[in-house]
Amino acid sequence: MEHKYVIGVDMGGTNSAFGIVDARGEILCHGAIKTAKHTEIDTYIDELYNSLIKLVDEVGGIDKIKGIGMGAPNGNFYTGNIEFAPNLPWKGVIPIAKLLSDKFGIPAAVTNDANAAAVGEMIYGAARGMKDFIMITLGTGVGSGIVANGQLIYGHDGFAGELGHTTIIRDGRLCGCGKHGCLETYTSATGVARTAREILETRTEDSVLRKIPLENINSKDVFDAAVGGDAIAREIFEYTGKLLGQAFADFVAFSAPEAIILFGGLTKAGDLILDPIRKNMEANLLKIWQGKIKLIFSALSEADSAVLGASALAWEIK
Amino acid sequence: MEHKYVIGVDMGGTNSAFGIVDARGEILCHGAIKTAKHTEIDTYIDELYNSLIKLVDEVGGIDKIKGIGMGAPNGNFYTGNIEFAPNLPWKGVIPIAKLLSDKFGIPAAVTNDANAAAVGEMIYGAARGMKDFIMITLGTGVGSGIVANGQLIYGHDGFAGELGHTTIIRDGRLCGCGKHGCLETYTSATGVARTAREILETRTEDSVLRKIPLENINSKDVFDAAVGGDAIAREIFEYTGKLLGQAFADFVAFSAPEAIILFGGLTKAGDLILDPIRKNMEANLLKIWQGKIKLIFSALSEADSAVLGASALAWEIK
Repeated sequence: MEHKYVIGVDMGGTNSAFGIVDARGEILCHGAIKTAKHTEIDTYIDELYNSLIKLVDEVGGIDKIKGIGMGAPNGNFYTGNIEFAPNLPWKGVIPIAKLLSDKFGIPAAVTNDANAAAVGEMIYGAARGMKDFIMITLGTGVGSGIVANGQLIYGHDGFAGELGHTTIIRDGRLCGCGKHGCLETYTSATGVARTAREILETRTEDSVLRKIPLENINSKDVFDAAVGGDAIAREIFEYTGKLLGQAFADFVAFSAPEAIILFGGLTKAGDLILDPIRKNMEANLLKIWQGKIKLIFSALSEADSAVLGASALAWEIK
Repeated sequence: MEHKYVIGVDMGGTNSAFGIVDARGEILCHGAIKTAKHTEIDTYIDELYNSLIKLVDEVGGIDKIKGIGMGAPNGNFYTGNIEFAPNLPWKGVIPIAKLLSDKFGIPAAVTNDANAAAVGEMIYGAARGMKDFIMITLGTGVGSGIVANGQLIYGHDGFAGELGHTTIIRDGRLCGCGKHGCLETYTSATGVARTAREILETRTEDSVLRKIPLENINSKDVFDAAVGGDAIAREIFEYTGKLLGQAFADFVAFSAPEAIILFGGLTKAGDLILDPIRKNMEANLLKIWQGKIKLIFSALSEADSAVLGASALAWEIK
């Protein structure tokens, strides 16, 4: 029996996207479910199975599938577990690879969602041919996948690359992880919305954002307002980009990447976010790196990168 | 002609230590010269040659030596150059591998001094058997060598691992590199002396350090005072350890090392520095890493680690 396909699942804090992928990296069919609505992991697995099995039947049944690769927050490649993910509804240790493989009856592997995106980008996207780059995902949280010497850095325990939880402002905002001042609390989509609320509450200038109830403002609203020329909204992106640029300069000092690749909802802001990132990164780089580090948006569609990267894991399951 | 030995040179901002090493990592003979007294690289090379050639003659002449490996600040393994090292007397780009190989008539290679120390520690010291660790050198400057997946991270350009120039206090002290608030400006030996002067100038408490002219205080004085129970001196180590611990928590989020290995003059302070490092690192780690990251002092003598690591480079020159 030849296995022709693999399944890739990109589990995010809000949504989970999935697809069936062939050996050339073609996504044959795909779908998505809401992660956040499942308070129990079992109902999540059930819905994922029910949605996926229809796609599996379309391509010829489960016998055609070699395995399932998943990218998930705090997914650990070594243990197959999701461990203490601050942005998921399920707390503690979730043996996700075992749950998937028991339910589907085929092998499963998991890694960090941002690691999966980095692999997708390296094999099929903007990082083709690069041996040293950092992938930063700006979504519900801020994730990262670090490639050095052509290899993903997993670290001693499989959890390397939690750059969203490095400190950008000492004693700053409380993070879902329990720490204060994590990069994620300022530069994720939710961090941007938090900045918007802070500025609108403490300042008096007019802004189209004031038409939206404060507790409902999201990063998309800020983006729309900024595109329309709203000064407060532009200031929010300037601030977000400044913190990202400062953080990136420190990341460069660590692994001296050829490029930092940006991925996720916030990248839709384009130059509104990229310009302040570049300016502040350059201002904080050592002279040896000034003008040399590429800042690139992902070349893959948002869902594809992580799904492709996750699916690549499944080919390698022994 | 069989090459039985290699030369290892550890160039620091103040001193350069060197030795002749056999294939088992035995240092047969060693010596040192002052780096800082040479305003010209040519006179440095001359003194290094004159000192080393005597040792070479003791072991049977230059024909017995396969090559020279050097660890140097901002030493670039790929180009063979020292490039824009803020703590050396020579500015700009120094083609150090070529200068050494022309002078000695044998091949030469260079890397970052902290990378060399990391290799020394991995092969002969506290990191034996580890595949993921970070070496931090606390000397005239603060250097680092990062090992992931059992390999040194060189980065795209050969300059990875400049953790001494990550920002620990935004808009803080001016660094030799031109940036502000670099970890090195607070936690190198010179940073500790700078902290001592700041505290003594701005505060009124008694301290044995007040017996020393302010501009002459060095980290050794602070150490001696702290061992003697001086409260101000102990506070200086607390502060230094706090900043190191905060920085280490972010380094762990990057590469999830099994251990952070400390090396260099400041480690002589023992628990005076290690206790505040550990406390503050733990307070800033994600839950997944709390209580799990080893903090270890180098198992090699200060000179040996970097000399051995540098010498290991020479075996690999093609």
